[in-house]
Amino acid sequence: MASRSIHLAVIPGDGIGPEVVAEGLKVLDAVAPSSGLAFERTSYDLGAARWHRTGETLPDSVLEELRGQDAILLGAVGDPSVPSGVLERGLLLRARFELDHYVNLRPVKLFPGVSTPLAGVTTEDVDMIVVREGTEGPYTGVGGVLRKGTPHEVATQESVNTAFGVERVVRYAFEQAANRPRRKLTLVHKDNVLTFAGDLYQRVLKKVAAEYPQVTTDYCHVDAATMFFVNQPGRFDVVVTDNLFGDIITDIGAAIAGGIGLAASGNVNPDGTAPSMFEPVHGSAPDIAGQGKADPTATILSVVMLLDHLGAAEAARRVERAVAEDLAERAGQGARSTAQIGDAIAKRVSG
Amino acid sequence: MASRSIHLAVIPGDGIGPEVVAEGLKVLDAVAPSSGLAFERTSYDLGAARWHRTGETLPDSVLEELRGQDAILLGAVGDPSVPSGVLERGLLLRARFELDHYVNLRPVKLFPGVSTPLAGVTTEDVDMIVVREGTEGPYTGVGGVLRKGTPHEVATQESVNTAFGVERVVRYAFEQAANRPRRKLTLVHKDNVLTFAGDLYQRVLKKVAAEYPQVTTDYCHVDAATMFFVNQPGRFDVVVTDNLFGDIITDIGAAIAGGIGLAASGNVNPDGTAPSMFEPVHGSAPDIAGQGKADPTATILSVVMLLDHLGAAEAARRVERAVAEDLAERAGQGARSTAQIGDAIAKRVSG
Ligand SMILES: CC(C)[C@H](C(=O)O)[C@@H](O)C(=O)O
Ligand SMILES: CC(C)[C@H](C(=O)O)[C@@H](O)C(=O)O
Repeated sequence: MASRSIHLAVIPGDGIGPEVVAEGLKVLDAVAPSSGLAFERTSYDLGAARWHRTGETLPDSVLEELRGQDAILLGAVGDPSVPSGVLERGLLLRARFELDHYVNLRPVKLFPGVSTPLAGVTTEDVDMIVVREGTEGPYTGVGGVLRKGTPHEVATQESVNTAFGVERVVRYAFEQAANRPRRKLTLVHKDNVLTFAGDLYQRVLKKVAAEYPQVTTDYCHVDAATMFFVNQPGRFDVVVTDNLFGDIITDIGAAIAGGIGLAASGNVNPDGTAPSMFEPVHGSAPDIAGQGKADPTATILSVVMLLDHLGAAEAARRVERAVAEDLAERAGQGARSTAQIGDAIAKRVSG
Repeated sequence: MASRSIHLAVIPGDGIGPEVVAEGLKVLDAVAPSSGLAFERTSYDLGAARWHRTGETLPDSVLEELRGQDAILLGAVGDPSVPSGVLERGLLLRARFELDHYVNLRPVKLFPGVSTPLAGVTTEDVDMIVVREGTEGPYTGVGGVLRKGTPHEVATQESVNTAFGVERVVRYAFEQAANRPRRKLTLVHKDNVLTFAGDLYQRVLKKVAAEYPQVTTDYCHVDAATMFFVNQPGRFDVVVTDNLFGDIITDIGAAIAGGIGLAASGNVNPDGTAPSMFEPVHGSAPDIAGQGKADPTATILSVVMLLDHLGAAEAARRVERAVAEDLAERAGQGARSTAQIGDAIAKRVSG
């Protein structure tokens, strides 16, 4: 069959980023021939090394090039040699905001055979999707500092939330919930303290809920939600939440679903006005970089999300099955290198 | 011996609040005769009922009376019949802010015999103290809403952090760490995103650390911290963090230490310019109110913190031992009512 050509931008980034991205691409190469897609890849040198060399994080010209791509695969950014926040804000968050990734999609799913730190939970108990808002909330960077370094210093951070921004992400979450068997959507916020933002989320949830009578809605304060993730994860099906709460709860999500080495994510622009970006939830882990110790599974599962996003559902399921099979057999095996895991999964995909 | 007279304000509050407070006072009565303290109690009718009756949450006159007390014991506030935030902001947070409870102290300790949702952890793995800032950060209530109810609505919440506020809580946390065997202090924040506030915390930590060379310091992003609470809780000894992050991580803390029924807290004014307030971490749980189902242990452990705060360390240890013994024997027993648990612990204290 004729395959659709996809321009894929690849940002390996820092630390273990390049290693895990290599395995993600290996698996993508294995599935591509049968996916109906032909990938044309462009690699972008962004991250700590470039910043040290040129002072650039995400230059305007590169951003413009990225806009012309169909999708982005990112490894990880951040390095202890760069001041905290420079690459996170200047590269990662800049991409999410400029490319209008208003949905940060993070499945929390315990695969069979994977060990979880929770006692007595089954794969059925841990199977949810977190829809994290990606373009506003406390992540705007709005804020500042007054009288820095003096005893009278004041430092502020502002969470900015708009009806426009909240409604589009809530709507997306309802769509997700409507298409899952349990059809349940839980809003996670802290509306008893952050009353202005919380009230906006609550009113929007209520309004959109009227259009989805088949979806049950629930509300949970963020503090209680973190507790329920640990002792009643089965409460959750689809979760919608703000940018910061989403950041926090998806790390607990990763922990209960077998660790950060397995947690995938998609920074999605559902309107298609700019390319979506797929990345493992984990960071650059400089302490283990270059040693072949990183688990590439989170990146490979991010490739699954990329394939789904591009409409190649069959190819996505094929990779997902290969990952599931590999995970199911891991328990008995000794430690494997990053490349060995990638090879094993790629082999299952082709085989 | 002559006993020191203590004026104790009691705010039973809503839902299960009155039930658990009754047991806390029962245990306090049991230990008081040997504590060197004589408690004179005044009960304050605050919470949902009063708000419905009068529209008041924490009237100025009551606040002034509270200022004249030596300490406060609070049950829980909040009820579904009251709009979210009214009692939380108007009563609980107003008390914390007005009485300058800048340290919100929350031990996370797994007692022997208590079951935790985490597989394979021991009591040694879960033994930390979270020092949560209590009077600033995202809890200030600063913020607002523009064009409410329109498609152009903007809702903001501002986190306000001051050198004054951060330094005093960080200093308190160093004192705690210096007095514990492991002498480790971890700052939990999100300095790669909330760069202004995070940088202030980091600089203050570094400055105060110079005065405590015996204390090891560490830093952890809040998202990673929540994960480590679940899969490596032993990493933490004393944690210092902002008001919102502290709210969130102490609920996971409660979950890993056996549940919200056991989590105690103190809203402490270390300078003694106003009374400190002790309360269980749990809420008013209206669904089980009035049924004798609530676990009063969190309140009784809050009484332990109250006794310690008042300098009655021996009495505090006595109650703590009674709780520990009761907990160690719970596993084998059937369900007991709120009052039965209180009776059992009070009996051990007297006996
Ligand atoms: C690196 C950091 C800026 C980022 C975030 O906070 O969103 C990360 O934690 C994530 O969850 O993708
Ligand atoms: C009830 C609520 C305002 C409060 C808080 O957020 O501080 C509670 O969750 C707590 O942790 O004491």
